[in-house]
Amino acid sequence: MNEINVITGGAGCIGSELAGALLQQGKHVRVVDNLSTGRIEHIQEFQSNPNFKFFNNDILCLTLLDEALSGGVDMVWHLAAKTDIKFTDHYDFEADVRENLLATWGLLRVMRSQRVKKLAFASSAAVYGDRVVIDEEMVLEPISLYGATKLSCETVIRAMALRAGFQAWMFRYCSIVSPKARKSGNMVIPDLIHKLQKDPARLEILGDGNQTKPSLLVTECVDAMLHIVGNCKDQVSIHNIGAPDAVSVTRQAELICESMGVQPKFHYTGGTGGWPGDVPSFNMCVNKLAQLGWRAKRTSEESVKEAIKGLLESGE
Amino acid sequence: MNEINVITGGAGCIGSELAGALLQQGKHVRVVDNLSTGRIEHIQEFQSNPNFKFFNNDILCLTLLDEALSGGVDMVWHLAAKTDIKFTDHYDFEADVRENLLATWGLLRVMRSQRVKKLAFASSAAVYGDRVVIDEEMVLEPISLYGATKLSCETVIRAMALRAGFQAWMFRYCSIVSPKARKSGNMVIPDLIHKLQKDPARLEILGDGNQTKPSLLVTECVDAMLHIVGNCKDQVSIHNIGAPDAVSVTRQAELICESMGVQPKFHYTGGTGGWPGDVPSFNMCVNKLAQLGWRAKRTSEESVKEAIKGLLESGE
Repeated sequence: MNEINVITGGAGCIGSELAGALLQQGKHVRVVDNLSTGRIEHIQEFQSNPNFKFFNNDILCLTLLDEALSGGVDMVWHLAAKTDIKFTDHYDFEADVRENLLATWGLLRVMRSQRVKKLAFASSAAVYGDRVVIDEEMVLEPISLYGATKLSCETVIRAMALRAGFQAWMFRYCSIVSPKARKSGNMVIPDLIHKLQKDPARLEILGDGNQTKPSLLVTECVDAMLHIVGNCKDQVSIHNIGAPDAVSVTRQAELICESMGVQPKFHYTGGTGGWPGDVPSFNMCVNKLAQLGWRAKRTSEESVKEAIKGLLESGE
Repeated sequence: MNEINVITGGAGCIGSELAGALLQQGKHVRVVDNLSTGRIEHIQEFQSNPNFKFFNNDILCLTLLDEALSGGVDMVWHLAAKTDIKFTDHYDFEADVRENLLATWGLLRVMRSQRVKKLAFASSAAVYGDRVVIDEEMVLEPISLYGATKLSCETVIRAMALRAGFQAWMFRYCSIVSPKARKSGNMVIPDLIHKLQKDPARLEILGDGNQTKPSLLVTECVDAMLHIVGNCKDQVSIHNIGAPDAVSVTRQAELICESMGVQPKFHYTGGTGGWPGDVPSFNMCVNKLAQLGWRAKRTSEESVKEAIKGLLESGE
């Protein structure tokens, strides 16, 4: 019988790319997504595939989650999460705990009762806190509630895996860029494109534009995830997923302007960081992933370029 | 006006000792405790003190917690927690998350709305996982759900302190021994005394008896907590609290037998650990606390001896 994989948040940029890759491997794929940030267009092409099934559910509803995980599911890829992480006076603290931590907790319960023995979890470089270079052996001091709940999820997943006896792979992503990530408020590239489409003469850039982070194209990210799960035999593992270099926000803006053929004046909002709780700049140590035999094919700038190209071509 | 301190779990061994110490400093003390493991006898002596107030509440009830934190509270000592941490087939995972993590989260919300600007938090050496020597700069990989939820609490407290602007001191305790910790299922000394009172000829000891951990008398523990809060100015700090040496379970059993004047045959249940998820042996690096000017006055064995003496004298 074909392996059954469940992807929570499977209508998102990474999740839908992963769904496509798993279907190509001949696996059965069930996507659970409440479409709060995921988009039905991302999974439309799979709907006619008999190996694909979409559950339009919130994973916080355990009864529906139990249904999605029933019938001999082999593995869960837990990608669903709260993505609005900008700290403001009206910040929804509750949502961090509810949608990241409690959702993960509920998933672990259902996995246990359905005897699912493998879990891959989308964590984040935000677990590290404010560091120059992040590697997996570091002390973790997240400075955002988002990073704190992601770390809490990692921690609870590890303990549960060790105690209840299942295998867990956890990924700490750098910025994942995608030609499908349209107009999302948290992502630099679609945000800048959107601004330039409204006013090609002036571009507002958060902070001083020197915020510099590694970027990785979503297809490479999914390739890395599959490589890790296929090759890392540890009961509990954590891997950074990213490019070894980084690209600044200003450079991304320049690349977008180049592709769009516009020459706006850049206006910086000032300060070193984008928003409170954001880590302005970091590099990612990807040695652990390299030792497992995987390296990014593109530099951060090349990944950014491809994402821009895709977004502009899709014309939305 | 006198400083108002709230202690959650203030009817427990550490909490009630802390309440006494704060009252002696002339502070107003409010204890919030649902008496699930705390005991009313521990705080009975304070009830006639006009500076003392007892709230017989579960901290998960935010309305009641809000009342306890109203009227200009200066500081919260958050000691309430789930203490039953032995992993079995019927382990109550929910309780770990509910009573440790959600309770802490609720407290942070109420602190924020009541503008309380200081928080001390009782974490645990269980956050480290299986290590030979534990120090604060280590990567944390808890192997119990208890340790995982304690680490999650630390993480969320740090991020919230940084984002919402309050000061947080977090303590990672070794085994805290107390002359008041009677017949508690999780604590080695009262457990062994209880067994010997039932059968002085035979003593069952979990594991191989070589489990060796630092022990600290509860009065010293509270002294360390007050020292840290009084002297550490960091916005967010973490300190191990313990003795620099350690004492084995067999040695504790020998000390108890000596004090009781009995000579039972020791029967070991076998294996290296007490229960699944327990870290059998470790030493604690207490350099950070020493640098702040505090050292334990007693060795682990001396602390254990005093706890035994007190427990036997109380005659319960």
